[in-house]
Amino acid sequence: MVDARDARIDSKELRRRQQRPAPGTAPGQLDAGPDAAPTRLHVLTWGPDEVEVQDLSVLELGAVLRKRPVTWVDVRGLADSRTLAGLGEVLGIHPLALEDVVNTYQRPKLEEYGDQLFVVVRMTRHDELATEQFALVLGDGFVVTFQEAEGDWFDPVRKRIARAGSRLRERGPDYLAYALLDAAADSYFPLVDRYGDELDGLEERVLSDHRQRLIPELYGLRRDLHTLRRQAWPLREVFGRLSRGDLPLVTETTALFFRDCHDHAGQLIDAVDSARDQASELIEVSMGMAAQRMNEIMKVLTIMASLFIPLSFIAGLYGMNFDPAVSDWNMPELGTAWGYPAVLMLMAAVATGMLLFFRRKGWIGGGDEGPPAA
Amino acid sequence: MVDARDARIDSKELRRRQQRPAPGTAPGQLDAGPDAAPTRLHVLTWGPDEVEVQDLSVLELGAVLRKRPVTWVDVRGLADSRTLAGLGEVLGIHPLALEDVVNTYQRPKLEEYGDQLFVVVRMTRHDELATEQFALVLGDGFVVTFQEAEGDWFDPVRKRIARAGSRLRERGPDYLAYALLDAAADSYFPLVDRYGDELDGLEERVLSDHRQRLIPELYGLRRDLHTLRRQAWPLREVFGRLSRGDLPLVTETTALFFRDCHDHAGQLIDAVDSARDQASELIEVSMGMAAQRMNEIMKVLTIMASLFIPLSFIAGLYGMNFDPAVSDWNMPELGTAWGYPAVLMLMAAVATGMLLFFRRKGWIGGGDEGPPAA
Amino acid sequence: MVDARDARIDSKELRRRQQRPAPGTAPGQLDAGPDAAPTRLHVLTWGPDEVEVQDLSVLELGAVLRKRPVTWVDVRGLADSRTLAGLGEVLGIHPLALEDVVNTYQRPKLEEYGDQLFVVVRMTRHDELATEQFALVLGDGFVVTFQEAEGDWFDPVRKRIARAGSRLRERGPDYLAYALLDAAADSYFPLVDRYGDELDGLEERVLSDHRQRLIPELYGLRRDLHTLRRQAWPLREVFGRLSRGDLPLVTETTALFFRDCHDHAGQLIDAVDSARDQASELIEVSMGMAAQRMNEIMKVLTIMASLFIPLSFIAGLYGMNFDPAVSDWNMPELGTAWGYPAVLMLMAAVATGMLLFFRRKGWIGGGDEGPPAA
Amino acid sequence: MVDARDARIDSKELRRRQQRPAPGTAPGQLDAGPDAAPTRLHVLTWGPDEVEVQDLSVLELGAVLRKRPVTWVDVRGLADSRTLAGLGEVLGIHPLALEDVVNTYQRPKLEEYGDQLFVVVRMTRHDELATEQFALVLGDGFVVTFQEAEGDWFDPVRKRIARAGSRLRERGPDYLAYALLDAAADSYFPLVDRYGDELDGLEERVLSDHRQRLIPELYGLRRDLHTLRRQAWPLREVFGRLSRGDLPLVTETTALFFRDCHDHAGQLIDAVDSARDQASELIEVSMGMAAQRMNEIMKVLTIMASLFIPLSFIAGLYGMNFDPAVSDWNMPELGTAWGYPAVLMLMAAVATGMLLFFRRKGWIGGGDEGPPAA
Amino acid sequence: MVDARDARIDSKELRRRQQRPAPGTAPGQLDAGPDAAPTRLHVLTWGPDEVEVQDLSVLELGAVLRKRPVTWVDVRGLADSRTLAGLGEVLGIHPLALEDVVNTYQRPKLEEYGDQLFVVVRMTRHDELATEQFALVLGDGFVVTFQEAEGDWFDPVRKRIARAGSRLRERGPDYLAYALLDAAADSYFPLVDRYGDELDGLEERVLSDHRQRLIPELYGLRRDLHTLRRQAWPLREVFGRLSRGDLPLVTETTALFFRDCHDHAGQLIDAVDSARDQASELIEVSMGMAAQRMNEIMKVLTIMASLFIPLSFIAGLYGMNFDPAVSDWNMPELGTAWGYPAVLMLMAAVATGMLLFFRRKGWIGGGDEGPPAA
Repeated sequence: MVDARDARIDSKELRRRQQRPAPGTAPGQLDAGPDAAPTRLHVLTWGPDEVEVQDLSVLELGAVLRKRPVTWVDVRGLADSRTLAGLGEVLGIHPLALEDVVNTYQRPKLEEYGDQLFVVVRMTRHDELATEQFALVLGDGFVVTFQEAEGDWFDPVRKRIARAGSRLRERGPDYLAYALLDAAADSYFPLVDRYGDELDGLEERVLSDHRQRLIPELYGLRRDLHTLRRQAWPLREVFGRLSRGDLPLVTETTALFFRDCHDHAGQLIDAVDSARDQASELIEVSMGMAAQRMNEIMKVLTIMASLFIPLSFIAGLYGMNFDPAVSDWNMPELGTAWGYPAVLMLMAAVATGMLLFFRRKGWIGGGDEGPPAA
Repeated sequence: MVDARDARIDSKELRRRQQRPAPGTAPGQLDAGPDAAPTRLHVLTWGPDEVEVQDLSVLELGAVLRKRPVTWVDVRGLADSRTLAGLGEVLGIHPLALEDVVNTYQRPKLEEYGDQLFVVVRMTRHDELATEQFALVLGDGFVVTFQEAEGDWFDPVRKRIARAGSRLRERGPDYLAYALLDAAADSYFPLVDRYGDELDGLEERVLSDHRQRLIPELYGLRRDLHTLRRQAWPLREVFGRLSRGDLPLVTETTALFFRDCHDHAGQLIDAVDSARDQASELIEVSMGMAAQRMNEIMKVLTIMASLFIPLSFIAGLYGMNFDPAVSDWNMPELGTAWGYPAVLMLMAAVATGMLLFFRRKGWIGGGDEGPPAA
Repeated sequence: MVDARDARIDSKELRRRQQRPAPGTAPGQLDAGPDAAPTRLHVLTWGPDEVEVQDLSVLELGAVLRKRPVTWVDVRGLADSRTLAGLGEVLGIHPLALEDVVNTYQRPKLEEYGDQLFVVVRMTRHDELATEQFALVLGDGFVVTFQEAEGDWFDPVRKRIARAGSRLRERGPDYLAYALLDAAADSYFPLVDRYGDELDGLEERVLSDHRQRLIPELYGLRRDLHTLRRQAWPLREVFGRLSRGDLPLVTETTALFFRDCHDHAGQLIDAVDSARDQASELIEVSMGMAAQRMNEIMKVLTIMASLFIPLSFIAGLYGMNFDPAVSDWNMPELGTAWGYPAVLMLMAAVATGMLLFFRRKGWIGGGDEGPPAA
Repeated sequence: MVDARDARIDSKELRRRQQRPAPGTAPGQLDAGPDAAPTRLHVLTWGPDEVEVQDLSVLELGAVLRKRPVTWVDVRGLADSRTLAGLGEVLGIHPLALEDVVNTYQRPKLEEYGDQLFVVVRMTRHDELATEQFALVLGDGFVVTFQEAEGDWFDPVRKRIARAGSRLRERGPDYLAYALLDAAADSYFPLVDRYGDELDGLEERVLSDHRQRLIPELYGLRRDLHTLRRQAWPLREVFGRLSRGDLPLVTETTALFFRDCHDHAGQLIDAVDSARDQASELIEVSMGMAAQRMNEIMKVLTIMASLFIPLSFIAGLYGMNFDPAVSDWNMPELGTAWGYPAVLMLMAAVATGMLLFFRRKGWIGGGDEGPPAA
Repeated sequence: MVDARDARIDSKELRRRQQRPAPGTAPGQLDAGPDAAPTRLHVLTWGPDEVEVQDLSVLELGAVLRKRPVTWVDVRGLADSRTLAGLGEVLGIHPLALEDVVNTYQRPKLEEYGDQLFVVVRMTRHDELATEQFALVLGDGFVVTFQEAEGDWFDPVRKRIARAGSRLRERGPDYLAYALLDAAADSYFPLVDRYGDELDGLEERVLSDHRQRLIPELYGLRRDLHTLRRQAWPLREVFGRLSRGDLPLVTETTALFFRDCHDHAGQLIDAVDSARDQASELIEVSMGMAAQRMNEIMKVLTIMASLFIPLSFIAGLYGMNFDPAVSDWNMPELGTAWGYPAVLMLMAAVATGMLLFFRRKGWIGGGDEGPPAA
């Protein structure tokens, strides 16, 4: 149970992390939040024949840029606003794009700034279940990516770069952008699967456990899936535009691959929707079963009470202390020889009548009262 | 009851079967899941005058391709990635298309790769109620189809090919693509009909059976229909584009036939929606009837309890052991000659008053308490 | 009450009547279901000056076709597939159109086949409340219509044709198509009105009758209205396209009239929606009133029980048989002179306290407990 | 309360007033319903310098038409079909437009007939709360308006026409059409405000009054608002098209003013939606409060019953008449000196235990049980 | 609790403040409501090198207009219709725009009047939580803004103007319009955050507090968020059009900045939606927990009553006063030596049987009955 809750994206946490500058301040501010990780630059440059991996400062970057066909500037941590500003100047990144990089809650989007493409998506953290922002600038001969912290899903991409003859080695920066964005989008699938597993577990418990304690948990889960859907939905649009093949920086060959991403985004939304439906259904089943349980409880109460109330009344009647000695009208039954057996038989007759009435109503008899065989 | 549950598509099972490569791995991987069936190639080639049916290897395929007007490569089972890769090379199929063939949970879609059309739909298994992926590549002079396993709905198509003079014999590969996709899409109708029958059976039981055990079953059914709808919905788009007549591989004559498919997809969605509405309605009726039943139970309990509670109180009153001998104030009624009959009459009066009150409220009297004549 | 249920379109019946050929069979099959009525051809030919009405066979049809400005071939009954096929050949109707004529559950649609327009709508039967399919082919100089059986809404149209100088006599086949489709679409209005009347009757009963037996009936009615809406919705599209004036067979003057039909379709959908809203509202009101009734029942039970339970306890207390003779501690009250009156006063005080508490809660007092003045 | 109900548009009444000709009859019929008011023509003609107001017959109309820059033919009452037909002939109004004028339940719409614009909207009656149809034909140099009866919102417009130098005096018939349609659309605002006031009153009552009798009233109100929304929604489209500036009869300057109308229609829909949301919310709050009340009632019942049931049992136990004299096992307590006090203490202990249990459950203690301070 | 309610936008108040002129009156009226604040004009003129701030009358305005590259006329308070009319004349503002300025409840919108842009949005008041209308006219060389009262979010903008070298100093009036509209739109974020905080507080209380008094509060909150959403939604459209770069007054550089605003509007709607979802969820959780509580109460009642009802009956039985002396059939148990112990054992057996039955049903045993660990 603790696991289940730990597995969740905390949507409130997410909201709180959305730092926004005060209304009216100038755009283009690069102040990341106080929790931002320190900034480090990893630079990979390569062509079909060679790959070089370096940790450079911004000043050294100018020297290696465009020396080889593709340069990937992999920025991790957004704390150092001077480095980011310098990077922006060296590579000609628009201040508004840089601001979006630093304000780490953006909706996934694609923007053109002059001859550069700016893409923001979210991806899940590798071993945790939080999400972080992943921004990418695709320019002439280079790709710059911005992650909030170390630790990502791109190791397979790095290995493919290292492998001579791979597509990544032979194609341009747009293909690199594809590989990275594809990995970022696909990173949602393990998360959705985990939600699915959690839902299956909850389903098991809803159907076997009689107490409906699971409703707040199910609501929380559904809200998380709602949050996920809102994050996944704009992905379709982003990949849709990238696959349309009318962006100058994206070759037609690569556009085909982005079409694949577009497809994945559709599948992701389908999977999230399906999980959300399951959660809604579980909530409804859970409530329906609670109502059914209450019905059963009411039935037992009614039968018990209705059966014994008239019997108790009869017993009470003959417990009255009227004095038979005073008058022949005062409870003469008490003094007759057959009084007690007659009352017992009257009681049995009343009870039988009630039971027959209940059976006619279908409230008792033939009922298997165990949990439903769902 | 067991039948009803067996008849269902297990939407969770479906989710689990969605194998996806890890984020960041290169696209175009052809690793089918561990449960994939072995790959076999059936090749039909024909012109208006002759038909030849062969089981060929990939190497032999090149020899027969385009020798006759139409070649249908019917691939069953997706386990053998080398055969699939070879097929891709011989016929010039794009690696992304082949990847989608192998990853057998795709949303129905139509994609153009150069001069080839790639279509993915789902179809139901013949005698079971599961669905499988059916992929089709339409190229110049040939159609390649990929099924997950042996056993399909295409025997009538094969018979039509075998019959000289049939349209299939005389038209090109686009008409074959139509015939196959039409059969695949139509294969949903028996499934939806079966759901409809199941729903009718459940409706019968909801209206006659007083216990609302059917709610989990109805929810499961509605979820399955939801899954079906999500699979059927993109079919409209696929057939819509095929019928628009602007694809170079589809002749205008065949486009008219695809318009018919488009229509069928619309009817399919209508039928699924209609079944879904019925399921939702049954859930609501079932819950409403349970609430009504509870109302009736409450009514009986209230009437019984309210009737006897004051009577029992009176009986209890005269069961008290105050000593009439001590004082004239101590329960003198007990010693009067008319005490007992008077109390009985008081009780009768109270009971009559309560019954009149209940009748005024409409809780008793004239009520036919049997099950509603729905 | 029986009327109400008889008045309904049986949406399940409708589903069962949807005959579909098995998946994979060739398109263009003309096998109507086993219940199809025998085929008869009524042919009307006319110009501004003369009208001729004939019952012809297919062979004789060729001779009269296009002899006068307008020919209306009015086909009733779809059992005779050879006649239909012959008709298709004589008039050049596309096989797919003929197939849709025979498979009598099509969504309303408009299709162009070469130089012919093919329109399918549904219309209600004249004196019953079932719907049937009405198909129409508009060609050069003729209109062919297909009805499932004898008996239709077109007698006013026939009278207008018979009346010299009417618009129908003077305009071309497109105006005839308008007149027929307009009548078919308008045939829904009496049906919707009847549903509205039924709803008004149910509303009356929901507000006056305390037992909520009407819920299954209301759900059934709402489902029928749902079915109606699904049939009416595509009408808008069909008439929208006919009124746009870009179809070669429809003159601009007639397009104006089709715009009127488009308008009617919109009003029809409005009327169906309005009835559906009313049904939903009635269901909710009915449930809300049931819940209110239960509340009242609970209130009475609580008041009765809570009032008498403490009183009965006190009575029971003094019914215990402890022996006051043994000790001065053993129920000395029983032997005091004021014991019984004191207990009665205690009981009165408790009862008054409870009643005041209930009044403070607003559960009793000043309450008009009759049915709500809705 | 009576006022509230009187204030409503009776949506059922509205439905009944929708007179439609029988299916199949010729279009262009001018038979208004039996309740139609007698037809009167008021004609205003003016230019910048002079205004003339006349009550004319149709025959006299031809003489004054186009003598001055603007002619406004203000037709009130639709009973006289010959006058309407004559008017149609004199002014060249299309028969379908005239038919829509007479069938007084049209959805708001804008249609072009040759060089004339035909607009239908609905407006509220001046001092009542019913709505009536308002139709307007804008032609070259004239505007014809059709109202169902005398009494409208146009007196301010007439005063503006009478005032020399006003915009209405100086601009063409399109500006007159704007002024009239603007007044008709704005006539909905007082109605919506009245619904809003009614809702505020109901809100007050829902929160203060404990009995949920208001639910049928709230449902009725919400349905009326639904009807209003359906009437207001097409207004947006009508004014949107008039403001687009591509209609030949509407000058660009006047189109700017129609843009203002378009805006008002948007605000109207917003206001209706907001009122509808409030109604829905009130229904839910009302139901939620009823459920809460039931909870409280149940709590009191449970506490009372659970508290006294064991106590009564103990009292009953010692009310049994076993004879202690027969055996030492037969209720020896009755004969002990401390029997009665011990039993009383046992009862006190049981009651205290129950109360502690209830307090631990949070059912009693510290609870302010008054109505919620909403 | 009082704070929470104070923090709210009163949506009813908002509705009442919507002053509309009577239907039929001439457009372009400048009568602000009776509560309008007195009108004051603050004029800022600047170029890259100098800034001048003046409080001018309308007459003096003509002299300074266009003397420097940018003039910002900052109008506060809308009471003085003559000043506004004068301003309109001096700057050439369209009367309909001025009317919208004064009627302070407009939906956010962007309109082109000749060579001027007219934008209306809403912004929150600085330290309160009400919203006010903010209108802006962008003309050649100037921006006029209209606020309902003193006190705004623009002080940071004024400081940026005062700072030499800032972008605001160097760019044209379109950039000023951007800066102001951006601040106005961003002013919603603190409000939404405050709603979010309130929701978090309510969530805490819903999960800990057992009484569901919060439902009316939650409904009110959700309605407010609905109102907010309706205000925020058109912002997207306004900024979308401003960012498209096809408006002559907005340079392409500034359009990029408006794209940023468009983005913010999207985030705003996301945030509002997210808060609304949370409110809906809280309502549902709150209701679900109330139902669960009721279930528990019912369970306790049933167990207590069902357990003691048969026991009390047995006790009552032996409290009857039949005279054993009269006959051997009259309650001979009372006189046997083992009578009382036997009855006690019978009672124990019955109670044990009931408890076992309840345990089999899962109603008792192992249940932690505390509040759910949500």
